[in-house]
Order: sequence, then structure tokens, then C-alpha cells
Amino acid sequence: MTEFTMTATVSLETAKAVVEACEQKAEEIDNPMVITVANSEGNLIAQHRMDGAWLASVDISRNKAFTAAALDMPTHDLAEPSEPGNSLYGLQNTNEGRMVIFGGGYPLEKDDEVVGAVGVSGGAVEQDMEVAEAGVDAFEDLSS
Amino acid sequence: MTEFTMTATVSLETAKAVVEACEQKAEEIDNPMVITVANSEGNLIAQHRMDGAWLASVDISRNKAFTAAALDMPTHDLAEPSEPGNSLYGLQNTNEGRMVIFGGGYPLEKDDEVVGAVGVSGGAVEQDMEVAEAGVDAFEDLSS
Amino acid sequence: MTEFTMTATVSLETAKAVVEACEQKAEEIDNPMVITVANSEGNLIAQHRMDGAWLASVDISRNKAFTAAALDMPTHDLAEPSEPGNSLYGLQNTNEGRMVIFGGGYPLEKDDEVVGAVGVSGGAVEQDMEVAEAGVDAFEDLSS
Amino acid sequence: MTEFTMTATVSLETAKAVVEACEQKAEEIDNPMVITVANSEGNLIAQHRMDGAWLASVDISRNKAFTAAALDMPTHDLAEPSEPGNSLYGLQNTNEGRMVIFGGGYPLEKDDEVVGAVGVSGGAVEQDMEVAEAGVDAFEDLSS
Repeated sequence: MTEFTMTATVSLETAKAVVEACEQKAEEIDNPMVITVANSEGNLIAQHRMDGAWLASVDISRNKAFTAAALDMPTHDLAEPSEPGNSLYGLQNTNEGRMVIFGGGYPLEKDDEVVGAVGVSGGAVEQDMEVAEAGVDAFEDLSS
Repeated sequence: MTEFTMTATVSLETAKAVVEACEQKAEEIDNPMVITVANSEGNLIAQHRMDGAWLASVDISRNKAFTAAALDMPTHDLAEPSEPGNSLYGLQNTNEGRMVIFGGGYPLEKDDEVVGAVGVSGGAVEQDMEVAEAGVDAFEDLSS
Repeated sequence: MTEFTMTATVSLETAKAVVEACEQKAEEIDNPMVITVANSEGNLIAQHRMDGAWLASVDISRNKAFTAAALDMPTHDLAEPSEPGNSLYGLQNTNEGRMVIFGGGYPLEKDDEVVGAVGVSGGAVEQDMEVAEAGVDAFEDLSS
Repeated sequence: MTEFTMTATVSLETAKAVVEACEQKAEEIDNPMVITVANSEGNLIAQHRMDGAWLASVDISRNKAFTAAALDMPTHDLAEPSEPGNSLYGLQNTNEGRMVIFGGGYPLEKDDEVVGAVGVSGGAVEQDMEVAEAGVDAFEDLSS
């Protein structure tokens, strides 16, 4: 019998390093962002709103991280299946409005297990993705 | 070190002048409206529901102002990117249902900084936009 | 640097055994119950509503488990501190109404770490507690 | 006519310094906390959940900061007036459940103006207050 499942989850120290890497990239591309790191169960570990970043991004960043943790996949993979006529049309209305189906949320994985997620919002979707990917890269350097 | 960021925000006196200008335009086109002015962080400063204006517009007007403040852009710019297949599809489901992606919400800007927003609802979208623009014009006259 | 924190969490198999023990006790005292097992981050693993159990208990059972996991303590310990005049008065209004401050929710602990929680609702509070404690006992037998 | 009101709000850099001071005090008293800094309009600037801190504190910390910003006063001043029979009984049910009426939330003030707020949760109320006060002290050192 399997009494327990063991799960690793990102520490605050790791979360801070991921946020820091995102902030650096956001400064590099000169676009203030809101950055959130959540644990594998979608709950917040760290969130920073850079000066001048959109208010709307506070919610979007947090929920991109939630979505990526909750579905174990990047949020940009959800857009197409959520279109009218496709298989997951309506996904964006589930989970009390916390599902975000455009890019900028990524799971953080270790040994093929999700151990957290990062969500970035504040610019065009490609910019959000670029900044979030800098956080994923920093995470992978840390955990390798 | 940057300890603080300084932000200007519309005073109630300015908000009243914006609402007044919107009301005049709404009377001119004979369409009662709900008009909201919010500050740069999306919180309400003034809201008027003209006699006979739709109940639904109480929510929509407030959230058009919220959206314009929260994303620093007019709400009519959000419709196309939020369509299925486009980059921000799903934006309308974020921020606990407060994102409005059709016209009638405008940021109020001074020296390229958002200092507030106006949101109008009560007629066809073009009418909402016309009335809100009268408010923006009044604001620009005041702040120039 | 601490990259990760390792957490054990109850498996579905363990959760089923806890629910089963609660159901047996509920039948013994002849009072249908709703029983929920959550993981250490408050998210549901298993929930059963016994035939005839109160509808209200679907919410209460789930949120007793949430509360016990979210504060690492049994819910009956929260009643007194949450009374007017005591230190946590108002706790019952936090967490979007998910805090339950009367008995029937218990953390499940292994090696002094919370690895899940059980929440029971459907009878008088003492009955809820008796049934939930049967679940905790079953858990301790399993995990020892 | 007063067209605008000028408001200072804590920068992310200041918020980080406040959070850091709270974390140090939390380590000193050996009690992991969740710490949030909000701006003067109650919107989040930074939030950290220390390893092992209660899940319930994610919501409570954020809303203590919201409450302190939203009412320009420390949250511990709200407990007594919110008791049955007193003048603000029911305050804890307003603002969609975001009002927290026990200690741990403090406004951050500069020149007698609220420029932000800090909210701490994770221990007994006195511990939350002690940790939050370390953040207020750090803020005052920075801004003096």
C-alpha cells in the first residue's frame, strides 16, 4: 500500500531567485512586470509587482502561476484547445475564474515532477513569456 | 534607492467635472448613462447613474473604468486581441470578471502618466464611447 | 541554499481508508455524514456524502478539512480564540469564508509534519468530532 | 481648483526591504510567516510565504495589508469596535470578506500620509504584530 506520496516543492529561497531572474529580464527589455511563484498545489510563495506594472497583472500573474501548477503545463498551450469548437472550449470559465489561457505561466519541474510554477504578466504575451522563461532557466540552473 | 514612486491622481473635483461633461453629452444624444471615474489604481472616485439608465450599466461602467486604469489603455483596444485565436484570448475571464473588453472605458493621462480612468455604459458601444470621450476632453481641458 | 522543501502527502489509498473508517463510525452511531480528506495544502483528495447526509455538510466538511490543513490544528481549537474579545476574533471571516471554527476538522500528522486533514460534518459537533477521530485513528494505524 | 492629489507610494525596492526586515524578525523568533506589502490603495506590491508558514496566512497577510491601507489604521484597532454591541459590529463582513480585524496589519506613513501597508500572519497575534512592527521600523529608517 502507498500511504504517502512524497513531493518536493520550491522553497522561498528558490522562489526569490526565480523572481529575481524575471525582474532582471524585465528590466533588460524595459517592461515592468508582475511575477508570481506558486508551489505545486497552486498556492502563492512569492509575488512582486515592479514599479509601474499594470494593476491587472497582479491577478493575471498570480493566476498564470496557479493555472500552470493546476494543469502541469504552460498556459500558452491552453489557448487553442479553449477556442470555440475545440475540445476544452469553456476551460477559461472554470476554477472560479482562475484559469488563464494565454502565455506567461510555466510549471517548474524537477525529475519530471511539477514542484512549482511561475506566472508573469505586464506586457505583450511574447514579452510575458520571455520574462517567465528567464525564471524557468534560473530555476533549472539552480535545481540541476 | 527609489523609496517611493510619486503618482498624481484625479481629485473628486476633477472627477465631478468629467462626470458632468459626460452627463451633458448623454443628454445631448438623449441616452441616459452610468458614468464612473476611478483613480489610477482602479478604485472608484465618483459614479452617477442617470435616471432611466440600465441597471447592468452600474457594473459595466465601474468595470470599464477599472479595466482602463488596470491596463492603461482604452477598453475598445481589448476586443480584437481577446478574440479566439488572438494573443489575449481569455483576458475577459481574468480579474474576477472585472475586465470589460468593449468600448467605453478610457484612461485619463497627464504627462504620459495614467492618473485615473472614466467608464461609461448605457447605450450602444459607439454611444458609450462618444459620451466617455466627452469626459476625456473635459479632463484634458482641465489639466492642460 | 535550500532549493526545495520535501513534503509527504496522503495518497488516495490512505484517504480512502480514512473515509472508510469515518463511514463505519457514522453507521455505528447511526448518523449519515459528509467526510472529506484534503492534502497538506488544503486541496481535496476524497469526499463522500453518505445517503441522507445534510447538503450543508458538503461545504462544511470540505472547509473543515481545508481549515485544519491551512492552520495545522483541529478546528475545535479555533472556537474560543475567535470569540468577541479574544485574540483571533474575526478569523472566521477570512479566507473567503472557508474558515470553519467549530469541531470536526483534524490535521493528519506524520513525524510532526502535517500531511493532510480530515473534515466531517452531518451531526451535532460532538458527533462530527467522534467520527472524524475514528478517521484520525485509522490514519495513525496506517502510518505507524 | 484642485485637479490632482499627489500621492507617494512605496516602491518595490522599499517593499522588499520591509519584507526582508519582517523575515529576519520571524527567523529570530523562529516562527515562519507570510508577509505582504500593499500600496496606499490596498493593491499588492510584494508577498512572501516563508517555508512552513500556514496556508491560511496567505490570505490573511494579504488582507491585513489591504485593511490597514483601506482604513489608514492598524488592524488591531478594529477588534474592539467590531464586537457585538459596539459601533462597527459587522465591519468584518464588509469589502467582500477582505477586512481583517485582528493584529498584524499596519499602515506605512510618510509625512502623515499613508503610502502603503504591511500585513503579517503566521503565529499568535502578538507574534504577527512583533514581526510586522519590525517591518514598520525598517520602513521608518528608510524613509526618514
